[in-house]
Amino acid sequence: MYKILATSGNAKRAEFTTVHGTVQTPVFMNVGTVAAIKGAVATTDLQEIGTQIELSNTYHLHVRTGDKLIKELGGLHKFMNWDKPILTDSGGFQVFSLAGLRKIKEEGVTFQSHIDGHKIFMGPEESMQIQSNLGSTIAMAFDECAPAKADRNYVEKSVARTTRWLERCKKEMDRLNSLEDTVNPHQMLFGINQGAVYDDIRIEHAKRITEMDLDGYAVGGLAVGETHEEMYHVLDKVVPYLPKEKPTYLMGVGTPANILEAVDRGIDFFDCVYPSRNGRHGHVYTKFGKINLFNAKYEKDLAPIEEGCNCPACRNYSRAYIRHLLKAKEMLGMRLCVLHNLYFYNHLMTDIRGAIEAGNYKSFKDERLYLLKTYDKDKK
Amino acid sequence: MYKILATSGNAKRAEFTTVHGTVQTPVFMNVGTVAAIKGAVATTDLQEIGTQIELSNTYHLHVRTGDKLIKELGGLHKFMNWDKPILTDSGGFQVFSLAGLRKIKEEGVTFQSHIDGHKIFMGPEESMQIQSNLGSTIAMAFDECAPAKADRNYVEKSVARTTRWLERCKKEMDRLNSLEDTVNPHQMLFGINQGAVYDDIRIEHAKRITEMDLDGYAVGGLAVGETHEEMYHVLDKVVPYLPKEKPTYLMGVGTPANILEAVDRGIDFFDCVYPSRNGRHGHVYTKFGKINLFNAKYEKDLAPIEEGCNCPACRNYSRAYIRHLLKAKEMLGMRLCVLHNLYFYNHLMTDIRGAIEAGNYKSFKDERLYLLKTYDKDKK
Ligand SMILES: [Zn+2]
Ligand SMILES: [Zn+2]
Repeated sequence: MYKILATSGNAKRAEFTTVHGTVQTPVFMNVGTVAAIKGAVATTDLQEIGTQIELSNTYHLHVRTGDKLIKELGGLHKFMNWDKPILTDSGGFQVFSLAGLRKIKEEGVTFQSHIDGHKIFMGPEESMQIQSNLGSTIAMAFDECAPAKADRNYVEKSVARTTRWLERCKKEMDRLNSLEDTVNPHQMLFGINQGAVYDDIRIEHAKRITEMDLDGYAVGGLAVGETHEEMYHVLDKVVPYLPKEKPTYLMGVGTPANILEAVDRGIDFFDCVYPSRNGRHGHVYTKFGKINLFNAKYEKDLAPIEEGCNCPACRNYSRAYIRHLLKAKEMLGMRLCVLHNLYFYNHLMTDIRGAIEAGNYKSFKDERLYLLKTYDKDKK
Repeated sequence: MYKILATSGNAKRAEFTTVHGTVQTPVFMNVGTVAAIKGAVATTDLQEIGTQIELSNTYHLHVRTGDKLIKELGGLHKFMNWDKPILTDSGGFQVFSLAGLRKIKEEGVTFQSHIDGHKIFMGPEESMQIQSNLGSTIAMAFDECAPAKADRNYVEKSVARTTRWLERCKKEMDRLNSLEDTVNPHQMLFGINQGAVYDDIRIEHAKRITEMDLDGYAVGGLAVGETHEEMYHVLDKVVPYLPKEKPTYLMGVGTPANILEAVDRGIDFFDCVYPSRNGRHGHVYTKFGKINLFNAKYEKDLAPIEEGCNCPACRNYSRAYIRHLLKAKEMLGMRLCVLHNLYFYNHLMTDIRGAIEAGNYKSFKDERLYLLKTYDKDKK
């Protein structure tokens, strides 16, 4: 379960115990969309780069390969050879953003697969069944992530339905966890707060889902186009209404600066495709900001991506070599950049945990935010 | 230098000592075209899969990134972080097969870069200079690989020119190795036998280049479209005229069966893009033949690619998982297949060396050739 070890302001340093091991929070979950981290990174690499939790996508695994096959093969952990925690999203976000024509009803959503266009129905029960087949450590509730610009009336109705869906998710998970052939009978459920940019709707919803005593709570519907300030504002408003003694997860966020700010507002679970996506494009993170290895100035640079970094890329290869690989379109270039970026994010979280334990999170955050702007200032 | 440890029929088991360490032969060189093994395989992976020598391509490194830059950065070994032997080809094969419009003269060849079409001149001196800049352990002589269907008159003239080019290569390497700022002053030179399918031209050429007392000898111009039987015939004819007390290298070959047959004819160095190219397409090698992981029958197959294989793919992942990755177009699928295939080739060579030491190479070869046909027989 969840045990707070230290706090510093609103920042929480905790331990979250699951059937697949204990997670030290704040934590960054490494995104492996279809049961693999993009960039040729295997679960055997994750040990070396400090990964604590892997995150896989319910929608993607359902429409291709299939959760039933994965259950038959022993579940996602066995399939991808990973014995630590896995969080699966609900599929909702992809259904609302990626799938073709869709129709939302009280029961759920009918949509078309983005792969072959075939019709699929997914509601709270279906989402829970798929996640149960995958046997993830943590399942996410099936919700509607309303469009950022949706009007108040739409958002109110959507959030009310999301609450009713959450009740159905909880009930269905209880049923599934009690079945004899369940892959992970200890699967946990996180609820998701919605409400777009309407503070009062979000707060009411937070109160409502807190009453349901779930294993954790996520703030959803952010990082979908609003400004960073709007996102921080929502966190300032809503996190106080989520239970402090449970994990709080900010979905799909974000940059190192976003994470530093969100931890300061009480968030302790994160996930984002940035480190792997940016890595595949040669954009790599350092304490002093992000650099683009395609830049000609790295052509003869024998330094590692980041001085002092102990990742498999920096321990062995120079910026010049990785730049050469990227320019020659060698997959190895992408792999090395992704390994570095995930290591960077995972170790940023280690530093964050240390600062909370030391009780000086605010000054740590300010220093890191200042350093992160170094290269941007160079450009001016 | 080269020391024969055992023989079994014409098969040689030897040790070849270089400034970058000792190579146990027969050996399969792992192809890293542009200073990286295709399939996101790093030099840090090569240790684990039993690689003894890496092979890089002079032409590719010259037209992109550039040998001068690599020299400035300390040479190819430092650039790619690999301290064991590297063989570089001469660029000749790519000039004659890949480059655009080209003009062959006594001095060398003028051709267009396949990347941006710019005009480049390469002759024996230029090839040696590029390879000296790269600082490889073994440089290959600049030769013309005449078209498989060239007529006798053309081949005679081409081979005579290749011999004159070899003399120039040797002279230029001597000069380069004695320069003060040479990356590898101990660079070695292998000559290349040519002569298409004309036994007498090949034999005369073999005698001629043997007199030049080079560090090793390659048989070139094979695996370019002739049948396996024609290739074995050329080896039967020409290898006896190459010095037994020097390494013998069959360029660009080949399948496991080709290697088993060529070792039996006295060859001890091999290179081929098959294991990495096939791996990227989900075609993987086993003792019983090659299998295609895209095949539906592997959908639920929890066995490793090959039972008993100790490669990083087989130690950790199932055929079902790797098939899933390949179908989802995840780079990781390609990486795992390439790692397995290179491991397979490198360990086939280990077994070959063991059989020669045991003095029973013929029966070992017959058994392996028989086993390799197992899956083909299943298909009938
Ligand atoms: Zn690094
Ligand atoms: Zn294997």
